[in-house]
Parts: sequence; structure tokens; C-alpha cells
Amino acid sequence: MWFVYNKVFDQGLLKKGGTKIRISLECLQCQLNQAANMAIKHIADNQDRALFFLQVLRETGNIDENTIAPVLAGKIHRVFRGFTNNSDPYGKDKDFYNQKVLSMEGEFEGFIESAVDRFLAAVKLAAAGNVIDFGAIPDLDSATVIGVIQEIMKKEFTSSFLVDLQRDLAAAHRLLYLGDNAGEVVFDKFLIKEIKKLYPELKIFFATRGKPVINDITEHDAKIAGIDQYARVINNGTDYPGTVLSECDRRFLQIFNQADVVISKGQGNFESLVEADRKIYFIFLCKCSYFEKKLGMGKNEIVLYCNKQVE
Amino acid sequence: MWFVYNKVFDQGLLKKGGTKIRISLECLQCQLNQAANMAIKHIADNQDRALFFLQVLRETGNIDENTIAPVLAGKIHRVFRGFTNNSDPYGKDKDFYNQKVLSMEGEFEGFIESAVDRFLAAVKLAAAGNVIDFGAIPDLDSATVIGVIQEIMKKEFTSSFLVDLQRDLAAAHRLLYLGDNAGEVVFDKFLIKEIKKLYPELKIFFATRGKPVINDITEHDAKIAGIDQYARVINNGTDYPGTVLSECDRRFLQIFNQADVVISKGQGNFESLVEADRKIYFIFLCKCSYFEKKLGMGKNEIVLYCNKQVE
Repeated sequence: MWFVYNKVFDQGLLKKGGTKIRISLECLQCQLNQAANMAIKHIADNQDRALFFLQVLRETGNIDENTIAPVLAGKIHRVFRGFTNNSDPYGKDKDFYNQKVLSMEGEFEGFIESAVDRFLAAVKLAAAGNVIDFGAIPDLDSATVIGVIQEIMKKEFTSSFLVDLQRDLAAAHRLLYLGDNAGEVVFDKFLIKEIKKLYPELKIFFATRGKPVINDITEHDAKIAGIDQYARVINNGTDYPGTVLSECDRRFLQIFNQADVVISKGQGNFESLVEADRKIYFIFLCKCSYFEKKLGMGKNEIVLYCNKQVE
Repeated sequence: MWFVYNKVFDQGLLKKGGTKIRISLECLQCQLNQAANMAIKHIADNQDRALFFLQVLRETGNIDENTIAPVLAGKIHRVFRGFTNNSDPYGKDKDFYNQKVLSMEGEFEGFIESAVDRFLAAVKLAAAGNVIDFGAIPDLDSATVIGVIQEIMKKEFTSSFLVDLQRDLAAAHRLLYLGDNAGEVVFDKFLIKEIKKLYPELKIFFATRGKPVINDITEHDAKIAGIDQYARVINNGTDYPGTVLSECDRRFLQIFNQADVVISKGQGNFESLVEADRKIYFIFLCKCSYFEKKLGMGKNEIVLYCNKQVE
């Protein structure tokens, strides 16, 4: 399966009200595994690893029953930063992937140049870039990334999502594009460039996280990727690996509310915004077994999803 | 490697004092995985699974820094019993393995009957039976159990552990044998029978847990196995999957202190007694990667260990 669009999937644990708790056992286990991997990678002393993990367990055990996975991930990373005094443990990895994808920019742009439908190719490329995620895949290597991207670009599919998105973009004055991970951000640039070419009058905002968290982008990464040539780069003011509206700053919220079209990249943005009270076009790869089950999709399949029915 | 006897292995995290914390990241992760597996097996509702797991995380996050794995396991099982009102979730599994091993009693006894060194064969069989452990191996099946036992019985080894143990037994009036798991208890009976045959005057006590926890034996299981024909069956008064002396009842402690020889089965008893201020003969299989690393042994290899140097 290559796309889901307005497919009514079971939002069970994502929905507020009617449920006692939003987070699942799988999400809790996954977040704790990520914390353990982070300890093994970044904390040398065995006893310190255990002490850090106990702090994570206390923090996790005490979450509110409405907590969603990106908020928990943010809290765990705060514990990590406090424990290690390392404000950006994935800094080097982010630089590596930014540079890696930038160095292959020509090759990837070739996919768009040679495509019959350039917009579709740019969306596929942006989605494919979402594979660069150390949260979901901690031991990611370049070969895996390139492999997944080539695989995705070969697949053919059509979706009314693309038609609707283009129609909305044609009528829009302001687009807000919510970025996700470092490395991936270079692929976002291709799509933004393509949008800019099709709709030159459109004012485009590109939002990053407010502070480093996992391998999520900051304004720094967006500028490294060259996004600022096509869009105004802003940040959401938070240290969550998602877009948690209740925590975003006023400046971001104003842009979010005033945008005619919002495109959201990645699972963290999806989890934090799927219930939002406005129309959002979500683009991401299905990256964990919990989402595979929830969405009825395979690993690394593209999800194109709009949270509001088309008028 | 087939035995460790007075081998000076790194007791690092097992030692009191000089260390900040006794439990390791690996043990924490393993205990939480067991809790998650228990949730999946015994709690039907997805949200209840997550709520139970959050309780486990709170309990685990708040453990004292000197907590050892069997104590944490006991605390987690208390949370489980409270959450589900199921006082013995492994009751059926325990019955199954008790009956399974009893039904093959003749076959296993054949190993001893045909052995050149009956005592060695009985020790090997008792050690081999330690493979029946749902804590370490949650999806254990009979084929695995039989396979490991046959494999172990084929191996040849000699150890001064056996000579010293027999010498101590010959001089002893009272033996305390600390049992471990259901199913395994039938194999313990073979060794106890052999000891009784060699030293008919010896008074033998066989200790079980005070209450059901994981697949550990209670007095009920010991009697099902027929241990009471050869030993006085007692319990330690606790619900921990080990022998946590600070929590054991007075009656048990009196027998523990007055025994001339103590034989301890299983990793949980080893973890809780390795620092005890008396000589103990430990028999167990090396069942987890953490112990493999600590002891420098392979999976399911027999550990014969005495915590005090031979006089």
C-alpha cells in the first residue's frame, strides 16, 4: 500500500476523550529502548547508565494519561540533557546527514528533473527523506537511507491527496511547512523549491524545533540545507520532537493559524497534530510496528493523510 | 566452559559499598521486558496494559540504589497481582511443567542409573532442570527444555566443587536445599534422593518461596514433585523470586543459619545470596546475557560456584 488519504483508520489511542489513556505499551517500550540505546551510546560508566535510566523510568511513570509519544520523548531527552550536560547529543549525526544528503543533491534532484510529474516526484522524495530518523532507527546507515529512497522513487502511485494539495496551494497566500529531521530537510527543500516554482506568489514559512532534540531540525539545520533561499525559517519554540501546540510560542502559533495550507512532515508532527482543529496535509513514512498495525501499512511505506474531509 | 568454582569473577555490581548502585541497565531492561510480556499475555485491554506498565515504571524508577534484580522482580509481580487480582498468573504453567517432568521421570532417572558417577549425573540433571524458567525465557516450550537437558547430560566435566560438596555433606547433620522453579523441582528431587542415599543420616530441608511469584516453587509444587518423601519442605516466607535474607521469616532464617551445608539452585537465589556471610554451594544455568558477560560463560552453561574459599 502506498498511500492513505482520508482513510478512516482507528485513531483509538490518539483520540482525546472516551479513552482513559493515549499512550500505548508499545510506545512506552519504544521510548525506553531509545533511552537505553542513548545511555549505551553516550554514557560510559555502567552505574551512571543505570542511574540515568532510573531517572527516565521515574519521569515516564509519572506522565499524565493524556501524554502522547512526542511529549514523552521530549521529557526523556530533557532528563538526558540534565544528566549528561550534553545539550545536543545527536549534533554530529545531524551534521553528517545534512552534509551527506547535500553532497548527493544533484543525484536526488535528477529524480525530479526526469519525472513526468515533477510535483509527485518531489512529494515522494520528501516522504522518502523521512527515513532519516534516529528515534525510529537508531543504527541508521547511509546505505539503508539510499536504499529506501531509491526503492520509494521507483514505485508508481497516484493519489487525490496530491490533487487536493495542489488545488489548496493554488488558492493560498501563505504555506506553513513543518520540518522534521536533519538530512531529511534537504529533501524538504526540493519540494519547497517545486512549490515555489509552481506558485511563485506563495509566502512560505518553514518551521523547525525550538531546541535540539534527537535528530530533529533546528533553524541551523534548515539554513545549512538552504531552505532560507525559498522560505522564511522559523522555529516552534519547544524542545519536543513534534509540534505540541499547547507548548509552541505565540509567534509560531500566529503563523500556524494564519497559514492557508499546512504541510506536516514526519510521525512526531502527525502524532502531535492529527487532532488539531485545522486542515493539515501530513506526509510521512510508517516507521514503527505500532503505526503499521494502526494504519494497516508496511514498514517505510508512504503515508499521505489529510485530517479534514475535503469540502 | 562447563563450570566455575571459586573463580574470581567481577562481582562489581553485586557488591555492597564502593559502588553507587547494584542494579544494571541490562537488568532493568530485562525486568521491564518481562513486565511487558506479562501484560501482553495476561491483560486483554490495550489501555490497561499501558496503565499497568506505567505503574511498573513508577515502582521501578523509585527503587533503592542497592536493590538487586530478584527484589525488583518481586516488586513488579506485586504490582501485577494488585492490578489484575490474579495471585498466581503462572499457576497453569507451573502445573504443566511439574506434570511434564513427572511424566518423564523414568527417562530422566535413567541418566543417573546408567551413569558411572551417579552424584555427578544428579548434579548435572539438577542444574539442567534450571532451564525451566519463565522469567529468563518467557516463551519456553517442552522441546527446548528436553533439548537443553539432553545436551547438558552428554557433556563430560569434573570439578573440585563436587568433591568439596560431598566432603561437606559427609560431615554434615543438616542440609538446606534452596529450590527455584516449578518443573525444575522434579530434577531437584533426583539430587536430593541421591544425597539421601549417600548420607542416610542427613536431615534435609527443602525451601520454597513463601508465595507464588513467576514460576518459582511454593510448598505445593515441592509436594507435587514428591520432595516431601526425602526432605522437610519449608518456605522462606517471602514473595521474592530469590532468597532475600532481610525479608525471610524467622523460622526459615533459623534453619538457614543452623544448616551445615546449603545448596542453592538458580540465578535468583545466587543474586540474592552471593554476598551472604556463610558458605553456600550454588548450582545454576547461566541464563542471561548480563551473566554471560559477568561470568565469562555461554548461554545455558552450568555454573557451580561456592562463595567461600575452601578451608
